[in-house]
Amino acid sequence: MALGEFDLIARFFSRPGRRRDVLLGVGDDAALLQVPPGRALVAATDTLVEGRHFLPGTPAHAVGHQALAVNLSDLAAMGADPAWALLSLSLPEADEAWLGAFAEGFHALADRSGVELVGGDTVRGPLVVTVEVLGLVEPARALRRAGARPGDLLYVSGRPGEAAGGLEQLRRAGPTPVDSPLVHRYRYAEPRLALGQALRGRATSAMDVSDGLLGDLEKLCRASGVSARLDLDRLPVSAGLAQAFDPATCERLILRGGDDYELLFTLPPSGSADVPPDLQAVGPVTCIGEIAAGSGVTCRRHGATVDVPPGGYDHFG
Amino acid sequence: MALGEFDLIARFFSRPGRRRDVLLGVGDDAALLQVPPGRALVAATDTLVEGRHFLPGTPAHAVGHQALAVNLSDLAAMGADPAWALLSLSLPEADEAWLGAFAEGFHALADRSGVELVGGDTVRGPLVVTVEVLGLVEPARALRRAGARPGDLLYVSGRPGEAAGGLEQLRRAGPTPVDSPLVHRYRYAEPRLALGQALRGRATSAMDVSDGLLGDLEKLCRASGVSARLDLDRLPVSAGLAQAFDPATCERLILRGGDDYELLFTLPPSGSADVPPDLQAVGPVTCIGEIAAGSGVTCRRHGATVDVPPGGYDHFG
Repeated sequence: MALGEFDLIARFFSRPGRRRDVLLGVGDDAALLQVPPGRALVAATDTLVEGRHFLPGTPAHAVGHQALAVNLSDLAAMGADPAWALLSLSLPEADEAWLGAFAEGFHALADRSGVELVGGDTVRGPLVVTVEVLGLVEPARALRRAGARPGDLLYVSGRPGEAAGGLEQLRRAGPTPVDSPLVHRYRYAEPRLALGQALRGRATSAMDVSDGLLGDLEKLCRASGVSARLDLDRLPVSAGLAQAFDPATCERLILRGGDDYELLFTLPPSGSADVPPDLQAVGPVTCIGEIAAGSGVTCRRHGATVDVPPGGYDHFG
Repeated sequence: MALGEFDLIARFFSRPGRRRDVLLGVGDDAALLQVPPGRALVAATDTLVEGRHFLPGTPAHAVGHQALAVNLSDLAAMGADPAWALLSLSLPEADEAWLGAFAEGFHALADRSGVELVGGDTVRGPLVVTVEVLGLVEPARALRRAGARPGDLLYVSGRPGEAAGGLEQLRRAGPTPVDSPLVHRYRYAEPRLALGQALRGRATSAMDVSDGLLGDLEKLCRASGVSARLDLDRLPVSAGLAQAFDPATCERLILRGGDDYELLFTLPPSGSADVPPDLQAVGPVTCIGEIAAGSGVTCRRHGATVDVPPGGYDHFG
């Protein structure tokens, strides 16, 4: 059965409403959404292109997850509560099996995150997926990139480098299918929404790590007008990464690998524990350095400054 | 000079803020936006794919205009005031001349419409442009597709078919460059924002005509649970269209051509003039039929029912 554009939207993307603040969802010219008083709207968009953001042949379920996850990660980095999403899907053909699995991956994460899909567009073209997410936050408590101050401590969530390790394994395997905890980590990034919410009104700066820890830390420093000292000895190395790669490769993947969608953030020094226990309770968080006056990122190993070329991922670099 | 992704965003898409309700614009993980009390958020997204929504070789300025215009048209169809936009651009290469012209076309319409670009994403890939627009409206006065009632009169704005006429001229010309009022109309659709705003709390239903008048009228009828009688004699035929095409082609372009982005709407009968003078003052509006009970669209010519195959544009049809 050939599905038309409107059947396709109805079949895979129209579902019973889950949020009472959706006055009008999929099916009209636009969605009509109720923003509660005292909250600002948080809006972000990210695009995935086949062959660039995910490998050809990636399971559609993982593409559906990833398209929403990378966007929710932006909301996490703002400390926002996710609310609504719009989906633009450019597809070579209306392949029902692919669409069904894509929708399942998308909706599973949406449901878990309290997000309702309220609109979108489906067109025929190369495989390109764009999601826009909308969230809510009290504006005074939102997390921003600018705000890190000299003396603040620098933190990262989770185990950065795992996703890049998974990608490396997929590349090395070539056409051979490969599955491993690292590959799963690469395909199913977990947006750090609860951590972002716990940091609201508390972190002096925050951003998500999508283009590599080192390059993204440089951006955070630029936005805040500060410098950072990064302790390479303190970088959290996941057991899976250490098992799969030699130490030098692990460090490269942690510093320069993308797609982790962990949070990088700063807190004023508390005088007691390196990591406040209530944050540690939300998920792994590691103190990896500190903020100072000046500009740029300095890396230290065993207390001594080491030369590390700057870097991050740039699509047109 | 090779431009990187972040230089590119800074150079072409970061501009001084124009709206005071933008708490945080381009440059952070997400935008932070202030929604005034009493207003609901209106959100829509549309994607343009090269070779499908615009011909290869279309001037970049026109692509920039069109990408925003088709989205603003969705806001017009809701009676919303446009506020903010996000732009996702997948581009084969960072061509500065192309980007400069694209940004100029986009920003010219954004400025004219009071829209501020607050975020987006730029990636390397096939030429695909996705825009998301956000607008504001008092929820009780928003225009919807569902709401047309038997006895209501049916209206269309402008001169539908002109854009399809322009596309037809471009197709017939092949590789030869062609410019004409119809081609300009095709490339520079004008979202009917002022008309949508004038219809707030007044039209019983409204939608924009993007996939052809006949197919879109069928959708409006389905959403409202009514039927429509369309008077073919009353369809407004533009002088440019009548000059370029024979009458049968004109009618086909008006009924089935897409890309006009006119508004199709219904009003309760007023008992006096066919078109309320204050609406006529906003721009051309024509009464083209009426709503009845039942379902489907019936076409009439010289008072008699004529058979017209149903239809609209479907990307996967």
